[in-house]
Amino acid sequence: MQSRLASSNFKLTRVGVTGVKKLVHVKRPNKKLVIPLVVTMDLFVDLPAHQKGSHMSRNLELVSEIIDSTVQAPVTDLESFCAKTAELLLQKHEYATCSEVKAEADYFLDVTYPSGKNGSEPYKLVAEARANNNGELRKLIGVQVIGMTACPCAMEVVRTLDPTQQTSATPTHNQRNIGTLMIEVPRGTKVVDADDLIAIIEQSFSSPTYSILKRKEEAELVITAHKKPKFVEDVVRDMLTRVLSTYTDLPDEVCVVARSESEESIHKHNAFAERVTTLGELRQ
Amino acid sequence: MQSRLASSNFKLTRVGVTGVKKLVHVKRPNKKLVIPLVVTMDLFVDLPAHQKGSHMSRNLELVSEIIDSTVQAPVTDLESFCAKTAELLLQKHEYATCSEVKAEADYFLDVTYPSGKNGSEPYKLVAEARANNNGELRKLIGVQVIGMTACPCAMEVVRTLDPTQQTSATPTHNQRNIGTLMIEVPRGTKVVDADDLIAIIEQSFSSPTYSILKRKEEAELVITAHKKPKFVEDVVRDMLTRVLSTYTDLPDEVCVVARSESEESIHKHNAFAERVTTLGELRQ
Amino acid sequence: MQSRLASSNFKLTRVGVTGVKKLVHVKRPNKKLVIPLVVTMDLFVDLPAHQKGSHMSRNLELVSEIIDSTVQAPVTDLESFCAKTAELLLQKHEYATCSEVKAEADYFLDVTYPSGKNGSEPYKLVAEARANNNGELRKLIGVQVIGMTACPCAMEVVRTLDPTQQTSATPTHNQRNIGTLMIEVPRGTKVVDADDLIAIIEQSFSSPTYSILKRKEEAELVITAHKKPKFVEDVVRDMLTRVLSTYTDLPDEVCVVARSESEESIHKHNAFAERVTTLGELRQ
Amino acid sequence: MQSRLASSNFKLTRVGVTGVKKLVHVKRPNKKLVIPLVVTMDLFVDLPAHQKGSHMSRNLELVSEIIDSTVQAPVTDLESFCAKTAELLLQKHEYATCSEVKAEADYFLDVTYPSGKNGSEPYKLVAEARANNNGELRKLIGVQVIGMTACPCAMEVVRTLDPTQQTSATPTHNQRNIGTLMIEVPRGTKVVDADDLIAIIEQSFSSPTYSILKRKEEAELVITAHKKPKFVEDVVRDMLTRVLSTYTDLPDEVCVVARSESEESIHKHNAFAERVTTLGELRQ
Repeated sequence: MQSRLASSNFKLTRVGVTGVKKLVHVKRPNKKLVIPLVVTMDLFVDLPAHQKGSHMSRNLELVSEIIDSTVQAPVTDLESFCAKTAELLLQKHEYATCSEVKAEADYFLDVTYPSGKNGSEPYKLVAEARANNNGELRKLIGVQVIGMTACPCAMEVVRTLDPTQQTSATPTHNQRNIGTLMIEVPRGTKVVDADDLIAIIEQSFSSPTYSILKRKEEAELVITAHKKPKFVEDVVRDMLTRVLSTYTDLPDEVCVVARSESEESIHKHNAFAERVTTLGELRQ
Repeated sequence: MQSRLASSNFKLTRVGVTGVKKLVHVKRPNKKLVIPLVVTMDLFVDLPAHQKGSHMSRNLELVSEIIDSTVQAPVTDLESFCAKTAELLLQKHEYATCSEVKAEADYFLDVTYPSGKNGSEPYKLVAEARANNNGELRKLIGVQVIGMTACPCAMEVVRTLDPTQQTSATPTHNQRNIGTLMIEVPRGTKVVDADDLIAIIEQSFSSPTYSILKRKEEAELVITAHKKPKFVEDVVRDMLTRVLSTYTDLPDEVCVVARSESEESIHKHNAFAERVTTLGELRQ
Repeated sequence: MQSRLASSNFKLTRVGVTGVKKLVHVKRPNKKLVIPLVVTMDLFVDLPAHQKGSHMSRNLELVSEIIDSTVQAPVTDLESFCAKTAELLLQKHEYATCSEVKAEADYFLDVTYPSGKNGSEPYKLVAEARANNNGELRKLIGVQVIGMTACPCAMEVVRTLDPTQQTSATPTHNQRNIGTLMIEVPRGTKVVDADDLIAIIEQSFSSPTYSILKRKEEAELVITAHKKPKFVEDVVRDMLTRVLSTYTDLPDEVCVVARSESEESIHKHNAFAERVTTLGELRQ
Repeated sequence: MQSRLASSNFKLTRVGVTGVKKLVHVKRPNKKLVIPLVVTMDLFVDLPAHQKGSHMSRNLELVSEIIDSTVQAPVTDLESFCAKTAELLLQKHEYATCSEVKAEADYFLDVTYPSGKNGSEPYKLVAEARANNNGELRKLIGVQVIGMTACPCAMEVVRTLDPTQQTSATPTHNQRNIGTLMIEVPRGTKVVDADDLIAIIEQSFSSPTYSILKRKEEAELVITAHKKPKFVEDVVRDMLTRVLSTYTDLPDEVCVVARSESEESIHKHNAFAERVTTLGELRQ
């Protein structure tokens, strides 16, 4: 029935399913452990004017088959999982000219706490892939990281107002900041490791944050953050600087999105900064 | 301090504030009542490479001033409020080359229920405006509407499986559908009334929905919906058909976004269809 | 049909509708303006074992009638609106022995900013009412307020670690805090003004927050907050102290809920403190 | 510092941390596979009047230690993980008299689709535990399941209105329903398997739902659901009936919560039914 002529013959940009939850197993080439990811996915193809409906059940069959196959051979990363899905979507929907897959998942990274003990911190992975029937395939990996920013502006004015506040760590408002960094992974290049993106973001905050901090470590983190005050604009620019120095091998056309959103402690609204660009633009 | 040279000189795409909540009063030219809207806004400008930070407090001062001025003279619509804000953002941030304002608000429309009684139903308004310092200004109004879709595919197969099901209203799965329609409002054209967009979406569902339905009206709504089964693809195409016949005066370059997302009753995930286009493309 | 005998005769605790959105107009006795509230409501009654279903459409008819009647005579407050609805629910569902209504709404309060200018800040109102067929009626009003807390513990340790940090405003982590205060309003007592609850919470933070702050005011707010560091535990206890001194006329059996949740800037999780109690318990 | 005397000496009901994300591994006694769960947790203790603050960092150290220990010896279920955490919270916070732990996690269950193929469907686990220093420990396991309900009332009226609709599967509105079932697991009794709770809920819907359905299976599911129409009240009562017949061995004092929330396709709001009770009450 979905193959019949549509009553009004408009083509559609994206047709598919959203909010699909699946358990996907990932195994990085350089690591021992298989990482389980609870993935929420959106899957789309375009629809030509003459086709009434998209066979959406095929999307789910496809995802199920790919996941089954990864029990034997886990995918190396979430963006490859998206890319493989996008390519097969095009095969299954023979009328489609392009496909799109988005995925996000909670992710845990082993960290060493300031105390020297080991533990894990929570992050979010985001991945996307787009394929078209000219054989083009683009994929993107990104991470969302929670950290801390301390405001340089209020700090400077506090120093002006209060002559006793001439120390390096002057009080200011600080707050939870959500940093996002996404980068395209071109075909044939080696994997961009999500763990490296997390490191880039955490270095670009006033300070990373930890679930476990002894009292002394908490105070030291506060001092460190106050010695490195940052606007959301600074967080984004510092991410971009690190992206440039880290990914020297990647070509100019690679897309980069860097974002910082700060849950301002002195306001009820958030502060926000973003750059959407390519490595080529950044290199100029 | 925000005016100082940035350490790493990258320009930024969007810098501003998000999640700003304000009470805005709107008065349509053709209507008596002033409509109160609880608006959640995002406001951005771009930031050149040489400027350390954006003076974000100006964004809030600006919004506050515009809202104060609307106590005397309410704005005619939410997109004009966004447009005015976007233009003033550019004036206040003299270093910026473009600005962007997004707003959304719950909205209530007086309706006549199937019983003939009057009441009101809830909708969501979305509006956007972008200005740049070439004097260009684009604004967009949209609505989100909840309605019902009944699946034509399952209906057809039920008829095949069960020979007694040859009636016009054969059982099928039906569900809550969220329809979204956004359209650009070019300068100098008369206002696109959000109420008309709501009507277009409601006519494109299998049936609109109501908060108050007597038992008989509920059954009649079910029968109506089953006589007009719709895929998400159909909902989007039918919106586009109605947009074309309704906005014959609007120019070709006007952007249109039509979307239908169906909270499938037979699945745990959603079905989704979208067209992002211009009136010119649709008219071909 | 809902009146038929149920197949399995269990009574039900709560049956009704959730997520009902309505525009309600409130007019405080001592104020000129009618305040529009976008209210999201839940409405329940209990259901005896012998009754198959609840006539849910009655709930919506009822709300619609009450709202219509408030065009002529606005209700004085959200909790009275809930109470009136709860009482009428019991009348309309003759089989029910108790009813429950919950409502929440964005709320804007005119404030004077530190600069002396006037503006408005966003808050959230929460209200509840329960009625039973012994003629008992309980209603409750509450508010949710965003403010700032600065941590006293990290501040003390920073002073220990850094001998230059002996000033009154030593750096520490600070963050957005969501304070909630709900109090029962007994029959026959004068109205508990939500604006007073907002004031109590804002005084119990390290500092209230504002959408508009000039640079100097921002720095002064930071200094003020650092001179008044607070754990979430302190915020709750200080609310309770102010509740006791403010509501000396209210009887012992009045319920009070005070809560503080802090979006910790040094952690990815939140800190939380809560007291659920009565005025009588607090007075001991 | 948190041990100092509080300025205002009110005790607090719950003090702790919320929104803690951890990866927990569970291994059911009767199953081979270790199941990874992305858990979001809240952890609380009470706080006496004389104690200024709770040592919240201990909560996180504790969770981290328990999780580390489960790498060697995975916990058998999420409620045991909560119970162990609640007991250790009491030990670590020597001033506390009671503790509370809540956890929720996405969960995937292998299912056989109507086509005979195997796949997995997503669910949500919820678990709670409370301990006090009288040695009492209560724990609870629950699940949230998405399914379909078809309305019996509209179906009956459709039959009355349309004489041709005398078939067993008459059209009606149907929709996504979220069923929740939680049951206490007393000490010393064998584990209540979350998979059994999922089965009880799915049998209580008009039909369970699946991510993969061929066209014929989709139509058969529709017919099945229409032959078993259900109000939210029926879903809750049918869960309770199945709970009674399944858990004959559990004692009378066991708490049971059954809930059904229906995202009505003919309304913009939801229908809701709930029973909060004990096995003893149900057995009367």
